[in-house]
Amino acid sequence: MANITKKVSWSSRADESAAAGEATPLLNGSEQPQHSRQLSGGGSIFQIGRLSTVDLEEEITSEEDSLRGRPKEIPHNEKLLSLKYESLDYDNIENQLFLEEERRMSYMGFRCLEISRWVVCGLIGFLTGLIACFIDIVVEQLAGIKYQVVKENIEKFTEAGGLSISLILWAVLNFTFVMVGAIIVAFFEPIAAGSGIPQIKCYLNGVKIPRVVRLKTLVIKVCGVICSVVGGLAVGKEGPMIHSGAVVAAGVSQGRSTSLKRDFKIFEYFRRDTEKRDFVSAGAAAGVSAAFGAPVGGVLFSLEEGASFWNQMLTWRIFFASMISTFTLNFFLSIYHANPGDLSNPGLINFGRFEGDSVTYNLYEIPLFIAMGAIGGLLGALFNVLNYWLTIFRIRYVHRPCLQVMEAMLVAAVTATVSFTMIYFSNDCQPLGPESTEEYPLQLFCADGEYNSMATAFFNTPERSVRSLFHNQPGTYNPLTLGLFTLTYFFLACWTYGLAVSAGVFIPSLLIGAAWGRLCGILLASITSTSSVGAQHSSAIWADPGKYALIGAAAQLGGIVRMTLSLTVIMVEATGNVTYGLPIMLVLMTAKIVGDYFEEGLYDIHIKLQSVPFLHWEAPATSHWLTAREVMSSPVTCLNRIEKVGTIVDILSNTSTNHNGFPVVVQVPGSDEPAKLCGLILRSQLIVLLKHKVFVELARSRLTRRKLQLKDFRDAYPRFPPIQSIHVSQDERECMMELTEFMNPTPYTVPQETSLPRVFKLFRALGLRHLVVVDDENRVVGLVTRKDLARYHLGKHGLEELQLAQT
Amino acid sequence: MANITKKVSWSSRADESAAAGEATPLLNGSEQPQHSRQLSGGGSIFQIGRLSTVDLEEEITSEEDSLRGRPKEIPHNEKLLSLKYESLDYDNIENQLFLEEERRMSYMGFRCLEISRWVVCGLIGFLTGLIACFIDIVVEQLAGIKYQVVKENIEKFTEAGGLSISLILWAVLNFTFVMVGAIIVAFFEPIAAGSGIPQIKCYLNGVKIPRVVRLKTLVIKVCGVICSVVGGLAVGKEGPMIHSGAVVAAGVSQGRSTSLKRDFKIFEYFRRDTEKRDFVSAGAAAGVSAAFGAPVGGVLFSLEEGASFWNQMLTWRIFFASMISTFTLNFFLSIYHANPGDLSNPGLINFGRFEGDSVTYNLYEIPLFIAMGAIGGLLGALFNVLNYWLTIFRIRYVHRPCLQVMEAMLVAAVTATVSFTMIYFSNDCQPLGPESTEEYPLQLFCADGEYNSMATAFFNTPERSVRSLFHNQPGTYNPLTLGLFTLTYFFLACWTYGLAVSAGVFIPSLLIGAAWGRLCGILLASITSTSSVGAQHSSAIWADPGKYALIGAAAQLGGIVRMTLSLTVIMVEATGNVTYGLPIMLVLMTAKIVGDYFEEGLYDIHIKLQSVPFLHWEAPATSHWLTAREVMSSPVTCLNRIEKVGTIVDILSNTSTNHNGFPVVVQVPGSDEPAKLCGLILRSQLIVLLKHKVFVELARSRLTRRKLQLKDFRDAYPRFPPIQSIHVSQDERECMMELTEFMNPTPYTVPQETSLPRVFKLFRALGLRHLVVVDDENRVVGLVTRKDLARYHLGKHGLEELQLAQT
Repeated sequence: MANITKKVSWSSRADESAAAGEATPLLNGSEQPQHSRQLSGGGSIFQIGRLSTVDLEEEITSEEDSLRGRPKEIPHNEKLLSLKYESLDYDNIENQLFLEEERRMSYMGFRCLEISRWVVCGLIGFLTGLIACFIDIVVEQLAGIKYQVVKENIEKFTEAGGLSISLILWAVLNFTFVMVGAIIVAFFEPIAAGSGIPQIKCYLNGVKIPRVVRLKTLVIKVCGVICSVVGGLAVGKEGPMIHSGAVVAAGVSQGRSTSLKRDFKIFEYFRRDTEKRDFVSAGAAAGVSAAFGAPVGGVLFSLEEGASFWNQMLTWRIFFASMISTFTLNFFLSIYHANPGDLSNPGLINFGRFEGDSVTYNLYEIPLFIAMGAIGGLLGALFNVLNYWLTIFRIRYVHRPCLQVMEAMLVAAVTATVSFTMIYFSNDCQPLGPESTEEYPLQLFCADGEYNSMATAFFNTPERSVRSLFHNQPGTYNPLTLGLFTLTYFFLACWTYGLAVSAGVFIPSLLIGAAWGRLCGILLASITSTSSVGAQHSSAIWADPGKYALIGAAAQLGGIVRMTLSLTVIMVEATGNVTYGLPIMLVLMTAKIVGDYFEEGLYDIHIKLQSVPFLHWEAPATSHWLTAREVMSSPVTCLNRIEKVGTIVDILSNTSTNHNGFPVVVQVPGSDEPAKLCGLILRSQLIVLLKHKVFVELARSRLTRRKLQLKDFRDAYPRFPPIQSIHVSQDERECMMELTEFMNPTPYTVPQETSLPRVFKLFRALGLRHLVVVDDENRVVGLVTRKDLARYHLGKHGLEELQLAQT
Repeated sequence: MANITKKVSWSSRADESAAAGEATPLLNGSEQPQHSRQLSGGGSIFQIGRLSTVDLEEEITSEEDSLRGRPKEIPHNEKLLSLKYESLDYDNIENQLFLEEERRMSYMGFRCLEISRWVVCGLIGFLTGLIACFIDIVVEQLAGIKYQVVKENIEKFTEAGGLSISLILWAVLNFTFVMVGAIIVAFFEPIAAGSGIPQIKCYLNGVKIPRVVRLKTLVIKVCGVICSVVGGLAVGKEGPMIHSGAVVAAGVSQGRSTSLKRDFKIFEYFRRDTEKRDFVSAGAAAGVSAAFGAPVGGVLFSLEEGASFWNQMLTWRIFFASMISTFTLNFFLSIYHANPGDLSNPGLINFGRFEGDSVTYNLYEIPLFIAMGAIGGLLGALFNVLNYWLTIFRIRYVHRPCLQVMEAMLVAAVTATVSFTMIYFSNDCQPLGPESTEEYPLQLFCADGEYNSMATAFFNTPERSVRSLFHNQPGTYNPLTLGLFTLTYFFLACWTYGLAVSAGVFIPSLLIGAAWGRLCGILLASITSTSSVGAQHSSAIWADPGKYALIGAAAQLGGIVRMTLSLTVIMVEATGNVTYGLPIMLVLMTAKIVGDYFEEGLYDIHIKLQSVPFLHWEAPATSHWLTAREVMSSPVTCLNRIEKVGTIVDILSNTSTNHNGFPVVVQVPGSDEPAKLCGLILRSQLIVLLKHKVFVELARSRLTRRKLQLKDFRDAYPRFPPIQSIHVSQDERECMMELTEFMNPTPYTVPQETSLPRVFKLFRALGLRHLVVVDDENRVVGLVTRKDLARYHLGKHGLEELQLAQT
């Protein structure tokens, strides 16, 4: 799902924002070449998403525009760690302002905050559900029209000859939809490409991905996913729901939209990374919940991908958002389906009811399931390897928006052609029973009262195809149809993932898996029926290929995405039946073990190719010999408690270092002793201080001047203006700034002998951004940041160190 | 579930072990009166559970015995915080020995460790499943015999008259079973009383509860639960499974049993608190999973109750243990039920299949569900308040084992009598259909072909009663029967919880809730059928009282235990159908909100009454004005890097301070400057060092002496000998000990200005035991431990401080 696009887009756009001071690299010692955007025509359009609360930012836009040109070729070495990504601060900055506010607040105040958190989560769930509902209805309507038109056309030409006209009609329709979808994504918001799951994973991990949670991204994402699904690509509309939910959460919880230039003046307390990230977790969960009708699965997804610190109330709130989301979707869909109040459509994809005798499985089937898990792992690894190469190719050669759009259109045309050819040459005719569930049965060359079985798989939205593979009567597909379908769809899906369109990989994976799973089921049934003639009971167990389709789908999906607990629960919730819990778990576990032997999961591959400093759960096992002294960056730029404005401006303007956090130290006056750590202050705080000219001299002269409040920092959050936009006169440069009130006086510290796993644990568990390394006299000797920790990973030859680079 | 007994037992036994040096209080400034045990006869028996790996401990046993006498009256103020509980160390002691071992280990070594973790989890699941299976079969057999005997007797006497003989027979049978159960619990292992869930909650929270995870506790627990369920008490066998799973986990993961005096020399790497606690989480999850057939619910239970730091691999392993556990139980039960391979009995309690039309609910039913949730919250709060008073009464007056046994026997007799009376006076006769599922239908005074409906509820194991309330045909209970049953069972269950028997509160809660829920359903059906005559469709929705029984059961259970996400998932998994997810969540949420308004959850009440220093998820909201300086304990006893043995022995022997962790400081020789922190060493480490006489002088003289290894510490874990058992001669007192190699050189520290929430977050997220407070020169000024943090809680009048006391 357009990860190459993401690559190109993440880099190009991020450079743009780096120039705008939003995403400046953190570590010193590496130069920062100002890459510029490759798109020259769209300059004015891009401003939409970047309206800032600070007017000063506008000034540099023209300057930034002039920097645009062709991008350098982007390095695509997965052994790199990009310096362009910022961290989120999950640790509160407990400075005096903050503590004063908290101390002023009564118990009732905290209760009200808690209640508003619940309200926000309810809203998140509701809006996410509405979006899912909107996508579902629009897709169904448009696809319905499309398939109806094509079907009528095919029926018209089947007997008259000239089916090539039908093919062209079909291809052109697909083509058009996909073109629209690709254009809006590639030209207007490249970050909206793909499912957005890797980006949300990064965000929840604590990496700031520029523009990932903006309203504009959401709009493009929703339109894009409608276009690509209606355009008949091998994609699903489920993955993007997770991203959509996250955007909704980030928007609602902040009580304002910079894209719309509206500030509702509510939820101002939530304007900091800690709170925002909690809400984004809830949004992602609500997205999963709406996509699969899996509220518990949604919660587990959020926790598995994001949470470092588990908090009971937070989890419960996330669950609430999930529940509201699936309920909202269900409710509105029930009205749409003219059956109000019937709450049986909990998600966008519904695996249908697995009930009655067909759901039971027997002990001796378990080895079979495990074998299918292994197949899923192998096929998933193959999928990932192919997609990895494809992504490398795309990063090298397909990074221009127009090329991306053309590739998407090519894929659309090829998909339509291949589907058509497969249907055309298939002679798998099935009787059209009265209780047939086919929405658009194609008769084609079949006898009257029969329909083409291959068309059920191809000439349908993927969700419906999955459901028919799970539930159609035994005998509705012949093995050859399934085999051919698996093969073609596998390559189509693999090619499609990474295009510049908004789309998810869940449904194609399920579809591939369901196809070969059903094939396995049919083969097993035929083997057992020949070997045990007359053993009616035993063949009854094997008779239902739908069960194997489900297991195959789980295996394939697990082999591709490698999620664990959350995927198990999602699958169980989507089937609406807990009986399959154990086999699904075994299958997913096998698929993960087998797949991990060859290649990482799809999302991890793409995260790695983006060189994101992603922190895993634990430090590499064999890293005990590293200590904070080796890991940290040093020397550190420190500030004094009372510092000259000129010094601060110079430090902040120094593009060669571009630090984001500065330890504040106190020097014993007149002594030669090294300075002791007494606090930590962030670039963003200094910028706000400079902007408001909080200088010691001015405070003395203007006594009536209002004191700087936490509100001023919150208003600037999260897009603080760059230092270049702050005008400091020569006189002001001589003033002094008193940092005591604004710095965090109790930053977390570690001694320099601390082992890497210990540093890692502290950093990860508390979601830190800066960790100060001190010596035994409490003097600053270094600073550990995300990149210092993410750098070490376990390669094939033991511990490896990734290179830091300005990609 | 015998919480009063726990109270008495926890205190009395803990004092005993405190004398044995196992659970010594941590903070200084409070005297430690040597409470002694109240039981004089059982002295020799108690040694079984206390076999130590160190022979020296035996010496003090007689001395300790002589101290036994009557206990002082135990204070029962819930505003107290007991000093007798130790913390577990979730933070690794990264001393030189540990780091050397880790650095020596290859990547393959870590892989092997990881594999053995999986093996251990598999074993835990398997054994927990086996235990569940054993309990289930034995209970079923014994209860079957009991009910058969009583039924025959009743049938004999119904016509002949003299049913009082039947009553006596029934009462005596119950009486006997309960007596056996109560005796083994009260006299042999009081910690085995109750469900064990509060204890496991505490353990997972990081509080060391003496003897809670010993083999002997498990044996008593299993026998006790069989006796109390067969004895007809208003209890379930599900709660104790959680405790059983935890014991299994603690045993298996350590690769040895002190009770059996066997050391298998395996899994030695896991012999520390960090690893053990992870495995105990898995065991608790496996227990939940076996009890309710809810593997996901089990994982969530473990996380909700225990985990502070969420780790993907750990969670996945816990899930594996859960799955194996439910699978094992299922498999062996299927063999027992002569239907091998049929995996449809996933848990001890099975709510039966909710399938078909009866499972649907409609939008306008949701307000009804919420109202039922509110009723559940109210009834739950009432239950908890009554039980709270009862527990206070028990702590005051019923703390002797013989009194406890007598109370249990009284309850058994009353239960039998009340049940019999209710059945006797009930005239709710129902036709005995051919497909009737009644196991022991009692005809009593009903016509032929009919059975007494009240007897279905009372004359049955509680699990069966729950199932019949959920699934019996509409009309099988009349409202009066249900009302009376709810009323009597409510008070019986409330009285029973806290007895000195092993038993759970889940099933009684479900049963009470199912009864009044079904009553609601019947009333609703009759209201709607009278108001809308002829509206067949609408009455069909209301017609099924089983649905309301389920909702009522959820509401009542939620109102009593106040679990959130995990309980939702447990209920959903137990019904085997995700359709009820939303209503169950809404009901549980309402029940929790309503209930919390009046009183805490049952487990929390009992934890509070035990004065356990339990750390909640977050610091109290209004505690920002407290800083580490106010919270910490000071002055701190520090040790020098090279310390005189005599000093160390004196410090360790000082019963008035009884610290467990000692900051190690380095003094600049000859200077007057205060000493700087350079490490942290634990009492347990010092004890091992003293025991092995790791003195500087001896090392010089005996060069061949082998170096102390990590293994020596692991062998002594977790029951380190008391200092009194270490003999240090006067010469040796003059020797020096070098602590550098053994201390943790990088303890976590905070500056003294750090706010309480910040200290709390660090402490809780990393599972610390000691947190050193330093000044800006890195000098030790205080030490924060669990009790310092647990002391502050949010009462009715804002922030309150609990008193520390030697209960």
